[in-house]
Amino acid sequence: MIEEIRCAVLGLGRLGYWHAENIASKIQGAKLVKVIDPLKGRAEEVARELKVESWSENPNDAFKDENIDAIIIVTPTSTHAEMIKKAAQHKKHVFVEKPLTQKLDEADDVIQVIKENNISCQVGFMRRFDPAYVEAKRRIAAGDIGKPLYFKGVSRDGNVPQEEFIKYSGGIFLDVAIHDYDIARFLMNDEVHSIQATGNILLESNKFMEKYHDVDQGLSTIRFKSGAAGDVETTRIAPYGYDIRGEVIGTEGAIQIGSMRQNDIKLFTKNQTSHDLVQDFPTRFKDAYLLEMVHFIDTLRKGEQPLCTAWDGKKALEISIAATSSFNNGETVLLKH
Amino acid sequence: MIEEIRCAVLGLGRLGYWHAENIASKIQGAKLVKVIDPLKGRAEEVARELKVESWSENPNDAFKDENIDAIIIVTPTSTHAEMIKKAAQHKKHVFVEKPLTQKLDEADDVIQVIKENNISCQVGFMRRFDPAYVEAKRRIAAGDIGKPLYFKGVSRDGNVPQEEFIKYSGGIFLDVAIHDYDIARFLMNDEVHSIQATGNILLESNKFMEKYHDVDQGLSTIRFKSGAAGDVETTRIAPYGYDIRGEVIGTEGAIQIGSMRQNDIKLFTKNQTSHDLVQDFPTRFKDAYLLEMVHFIDTLRKGEQPLCTAWDGKKALEISIAATSSFNNGETVLLKH
Amino acid sequence: MIEEIRCAVLGLGRLGYWHAENIASKIQGAKLVKVIDPLKGRAEEVARELKVESWSENPNDAFKDENIDAIIIVTPTSTHAEMIKKAAQHKKHVFVEKPLTQKLDEADDVIQVIKENNISCQVGFMRRFDPAYVEAKRRIAAGDIGKPLYFKGVSRDGNVPQEEFIKYSGGIFLDVAIHDYDIARFLMNDEVHSIQATGNILLESNKFMEKYHDVDQGLSTIRFKSGAAGDVETTRIAPYGYDIRGEVIGTEGAIQIGSMRQNDIKLFTKNQTSHDLVQDFPTRFKDAYLLEMVHFIDTLRKGEQPLCTAWDGKKALEISIAATSSFNNGETVLLKH
Amino acid sequence: MIEEIRCAVLGLGRLGYWHAENIASKIQGAKLVKVIDPLKGRAEEVARELKVESWSENPNDAFKDENIDAIIIVTPTSTHAEMIKKAAQHKKHVFVEKPLTQKLDEADDVIQVIKENNISCQVGFMRRFDPAYVEAKRRIAAGDIGKPLYFKGVSRDGNVPQEEFIKYSGGIFLDVAIHDYDIARFLMNDEVHSIQATGNILLESNKFMEKYHDVDQGLSTIRFKSGAAGDVETTRIAPYGYDIRGEVIGTEGAIQIGSMRQNDIKLFTKNQTSHDLVQDFPTRFKDAYLLEMVHFIDTLRKGEQPLCTAWDGKKALEISIAATSSFNNGETVLLKH
Ligand SMILES: NC(=O)c1ccc[n+]([C@@H]2O[C@H](COP(=O)([O-])OP(=O)(O)OC[C@H]3O[C@@H](n4cnc5c(N)ncnc54)[C@H](O)[C@@H]3O)[C@@H](O)[C@H]2O)c1
Ligand SMILES: NC(=O)c1ccc[n+]([C@@H]2O[C@H](COP(=O)([O-])OP(=O)(O)OC[C@H]3O[C@@H](n4cnc5c(N)ncnc54)[C@H](O)[C@@H]3O)[C@@H](O)[C@H]2O)c1
Ligand SMILES: NC(=O)c1ccc[n+]([C@@H]2O[C@H](COP(=O)([O-])OP(=O)(O)OC[C@H]3O[C@@H](n4cnc5c(N)ncnc54)[C@H](O)[C@@H]3O)[C@@H](O)[C@H]2O)c1
Ligand SMILES: NC(=O)c1ccc[n+]([C@@H]2O[C@H](COP(=O)([O-])OP(=O)(O)OC[C@H]3O[C@@H](n4cnc5c(N)ncnc54)[C@H](O)[C@@H]3O)[C@@H](O)[C@H]2O)c1
Repeated sequence: MIEEIRCAVLGLGRLGYWHAENIASKIQGAKLVKVIDPLKGRAEEVARELKVESWSENPNDAFKDENIDAIIIVTPTSTHAEMIKKAAQHKKHVFVEKPLTQKLDEADDVIQVIKENNISCQVGFMRRFDPAYVEAKRRIAAGDIGKPLYFKGVSRDGNVPQEEFIKYSGGIFLDVAIHDYDIARFLMNDEVHSIQATGNILLESNKFMEKYHDVDQGLSTIRFKSGAAGDVETTRIAPYGYDIRGEVIGTEGAIQIGSMRQNDIKLFTKNQTSHDLVQDFPTRFKDAYLLEMVHFIDTLRKGEQPLCTAWDGKKALEISIAATSSFNNGETVLLKH
Repeated sequence: MIEEIRCAVLGLGRLGYWHAENIASKIQGAKLVKVIDPLKGRAEEVARELKVESWSENPNDAFKDENIDAIIIVTPTSTHAEMIKKAAQHKKHVFVEKPLTQKLDEADDVIQVIKENNISCQVGFMRRFDPAYVEAKRRIAAGDIGKPLYFKGVSRDGNVPQEEFIKYSGGIFLDVAIHDYDIARFLMNDEVHSIQATGNILLESNKFMEKYHDVDQGLSTIRFKSGAAGDVETTRIAPYGYDIRGEVIGTEGAIQIGSMRQNDIKLFTKNQTSHDLVQDFPTRFKDAYLLEMVHFIDTLRKGEQPLCTAWDGKKALEISIAATSSFNNGETVLLKH
Repeated sequence: MIEEIRCAVLGLGRLGYWHAENIASKIQGAKLVKVIDPLKGRAEEVARELKVESWSENPNDAFKDENIDAIIIVTPTSTHAEMIKKAAQHKKHVFVEKPLTQKLDEADDVIQVIKENNISCQVGFMRRFDPAYVEAKRRIAAGDIGKPLYFKGVSRDGNVPQEEFIKYSGGIFLDVAIHDYDIARFLMNDEVHSIQATGNILLESNKFMEKYHDVDQGLSTIRFKSGAAGDVETTRIAPYGYDIRGEVIGTEGAIQIGSMRQNDIKLFTKNQTSHDLVQDFPTRFKDAYLLEMVHFIDTLRKGEQPLCTAWDGKKALEISIAATSSFNNGETVLLKH
Repeated sequence: MIEEIRCAVLGLGRLGYWHAENIASKIQGAKLVKVIDPLKGRAEEVARELKVESWSENPNDAFKDENIDAIIIVTPTSTHAEMIKKAAQHKKHVFVEKPLTQKLDEADDVIQVIKENNISCQVGFMRRFDPAYVEAKRRIAAGDIGKPLYFKGVSRDGNVPQEEFIKYSGGIFLDVAIHDYDIARFLMNDEVHSIQATGNILLESNKFMEKYHDVDQGLSTIRFKSGAAGDVETTRIAPYGYDIRGEVIGTEGAIQIGSMRQNDIKLFTKNQTSHDLVQDFPTRFKDAYLLEMVHFIDTLRKGEQPLCTAWDGKKALEISIAATSSFNNGETVLLKH
């Protein structure tokens, strides 16, 4: 087993910073040796805070650095393909945030280059590492619900993004529902055969989304190759909190994943009892973000394949693109691959 | 206020028997004076059990009997239209089980005759009387969740019906989802603009449903006139129990209806805690079946309109038929009326 | 089986009225033939409302009436002993509200007279008929938790009674905890060996209770004959609702009874989810009050013993009196009988 | 702020190992520089595993080492007093596991020496750092339930300890209930005025406890100085899991702490739904053990007092000893201090 994986984090936005923080202090066998962000001053600041020995404002500094084993790519999605390819060509292992790329042919390119250079590449579908999903997967694999027949996903967020974000997000199916598509493949242990999607702008204040052919609520209906089916509800306007649920119905039972409870306390006041709700994804998936990185480092040290490869990244992308296209033209879309 | 409504129950199958039992002994202001079923011996048997003074094997005996104020029609759906019309023509008030009729033009006819004869007609959408739905309606009407934006319905049953039943059931959208369509209209206080539906046969053993263009799982996506939206999942193969849920997301909050808990106890055994689940609709909606009948009698005594009229029966039918048609031809169906 | 039990209700206060209403219209095989209350006008009013053929302001009219099979005694507790004895001497069966009597020797007298006259006597411990307790009993009897080792009862009420009530209530252990003592015997299938009790006046505004040697919160610790143990918390000052819970720990598992949920809906608003709580005993035990009366009538018709006899009434009284005495003198009290 | 606190862990049993592991890799500003355990080979093994630079089998090596700022004492309770005093005399700050000491005069001595040497001393009442208790404290302090009136604690463990452990444990009130006594003081923000305790050996197989005047189930009734009250149920024989609950009733509302849920999933099988239960304290309080150590290091770096001092350690000890004495002599015990 390799003693230590020397990592660089590329992109120090909100998510990049957490990844950097986790690697810097919470993961055995990992060492954060460089942080990089083109934004003036950002890398230096982060390096100081996290006590990282080296920083740069030039992404290329990560690829060429002989001292680096693995690169964590947390840059805007449009740059992922180029970043992964460069990393691969320099024999650096890659952890890349979801989505893998924005286009299918880019994904194919990337997978090709990864293979040729024989590097490891893990995609940031952190739900696969969330303890509740992990336990659900274990139970399903153990046969506790028989043969899976139906997947139901709900992803609701209450924090409506700014127009600037929506513009480049790729749309609700690519930006949000992709997590459900990935976890559906994971839990059902099945591939998507076809998908159909609809959507609506439910809030007046989101009318601007029309310009970007986007919606604040989408629903997709899935058929799996095995004959199983499913649906995924995606909402940006939940006024009460951050609400992520999963359900799998099998021949012998069903499993429900998720709870919105924030703290393990209940308040009782005149006539009612209440508890707090989780408000955002950083809170809900805090553990998962750490655990996916632990897994990344672990598999690198042991020379094993990650649970969630570039191939998985491509499959989820393919489903998202098909959903988007179904939403746009009103027809059921068959997946080719 | 009228002292007493004299009732006859027409059709003494499973549901008919309960209605008869409720009227016979549990509803103030109602008197069960006749029970009728063409099945040899059935009416006599029920009359004896429930101590009803008169019985018959000829449906027409209900219509002509001067002693009768209201007829409870619990016969097979195919006979509803004819029964309602005859009752109306004899100035008998009507409670009719869902669905009102099987075809839209029949529904129009029936509504016409009801109007002409100035009788009251309540349709058996018992969910509207279930205490949880009643409270949800009250909360929504009180503005507790703001303006309703999204309806989510789940209706799962674990008791797969026999082929004989499926054959005449009208399909999953007409037989099962119709309850969700009605309650969606009720809770959203809105009309359906268009609907899209898909479905699958998930269980090998249900392949016979193909012959009847039916499925054991269906999903419908709804757009309301106001711009709100919704989805309804309908399943005949839930292996764990009878699972009816509703959810409404509004601008200020959301509301969830339903719990599958059978008894208010929890068992704790080595390593796990469990509670029993409701297994079937008679158990889940026991109170609702009684309360809808209480309402029927109450409104008749007070000369008021019931909460759930033939018009509501027709609207739900229309949505169900549109869903069925969308399922068959793969397109979104706009509602005309 | 006897066709019909003709009943008289004696005492038409809040609880008496419900019993009368239940017998009048909701119980097969029961007929309410007389209602009696010395309070001027009360009996007549109730008779009119419930359409009862006969009423009186003289309790003795119930005993002498040949037309009456059973008397439901819902008068103030101080009168129970006399009423039961008179009823027994006139060979009327008796349903008597809890507590059976206020003193142990009265209870012994009453039991003696009941035996001599060979009548049936059921005491109003309605928790035994509440569906959740019934199911818990069934599970325990089925061995689902092994051998019962510990009973935990919580009875909290938020409606602090008036001074006038406290004065004659017999104290918190006799008035409230008695329900827990009875249900403990029932669920544990065991007799109490000794009891110890403490109590406090927690609310400043309840200081007046001191005059009556009463408290607004009590806790009793129980040892059962089998070696099992238990505790009962009783509170009059729960500011949030009516909260009745039971728990039994056994060698193989445990069971929890009770939920404070009022309606099967959950409301989600910004940052929190809540549901309504049950507010009072009429709401919580509505079904139980009906079901205990159904049982009373049923056992009379079949000539069987009720689930909850005068003997049970006496045992619970004995425990309550011992608890009160322990509370007063600070010592553990052994039960003699 | 001090850059780094150099720590030694004394005692590398189960709990000592976790503390060492947490300090070694998960706490910013802490450095584990030495591990010590008299057990042959243990310290060396742990040092190797956690990459600690120095180890010893002689406790005195911790006190004399100039390189050490703080000592984490996780040795058997009987040694705590001596260890703390030595540490204090060498000006080392101390984190000591609960209970502070086994006797009250030892506690007084220890507090004296701590003061004289002006060191910081935190006691390991980790519940104070468990997120649920922290939030409950915050809510109570914010006035969300009004003035606290009643505390209810339940501590149930299903892992019956070996005779060897029971022998030196100090009894159920000192070993287990002490956590509830501490958290009661914390949440109620009040001091205990008097306590009364009873207990039983519920399991035949625990009869050996009699020899040590111990029981497998205890109940204590508390009066607080303010007039508030409470009770604490402590059980070693819960057959279903590790069940820690807290409740505070106030004048305006109540708060419940705790959930036994192990994973955020629910399994639905024919007729029932279930979820896994937490099985032991390492699982239940994993976060709390880390967070208490984070707090210890934080307060040392900032020169602040910890949330849970030797004084708190002594108060909880005093209550435990009073409970034990009440259990032994059957009387209510007033606390002197
Ligand atoms: N897994 C999840 O739940 C999740 C959540 C949020 C975002 N993401 C993904 O993470 C990625 C980053 O999202 P974010 O929200 O952190 O974005 P962000 O805009 O907050 O941060 C992006 C950062 O990358 C830097 N950057 C831009 N171009 C760069 C380049 N060529 N090289 C290095 N750095 C560059 C920017 O200066 C910025 O600091 C996206 O792919 C997004 O889809 C995933
Ligand atoms: N609201 C609900 O949840 C719900 C549930 C089940 C059924 N239903 C509806 O109730 C109706 C009856 O269903 P069911 O399950 O009780 O059916 P069923 O087959 O058990 O009973 C129907 C009864 O009607 C009798 N019958 C047939 N033709 C008749 C006639 N011309 N006149 C009088 N009686 C006649 C039959 O002999 C039989 O006894 C249907 O419309 C069905 O859709 C509603
Ligand atoms: N099971 C329970 O949960 C429960 C709840 C409340 C009361 N109770 C019991 O029910 C009994 C009545 O309580 P309540 O709250 O209805 O009291 P209440 O004061 O509301 O009613 C008592 C009624 O009895 C009448 N009465 C008085 N003396 C009478 C007599 N000699 N003959 C006939 N009627 C007489 C009074 O006029 C009054 O109408 C008590 O024993 C009480 O302990 C039980
Ligand atoms: N906070 C909690 O929830 C909690 C839980 C368990 C134990 N504890 C407390 O932690 C302490 C240790 O308990 P444990 O279960 O880890 O015990 P343990 O027996 O597993 O470990 C004690 C260790 O201390 C070592 N030791 C003995 N004498 C020593 C000395 N003089 N100097 C250094 N090391 C010495 C032993 O060799 C052993 O390795 C006790 O005070 C106990 O009450 C607290």
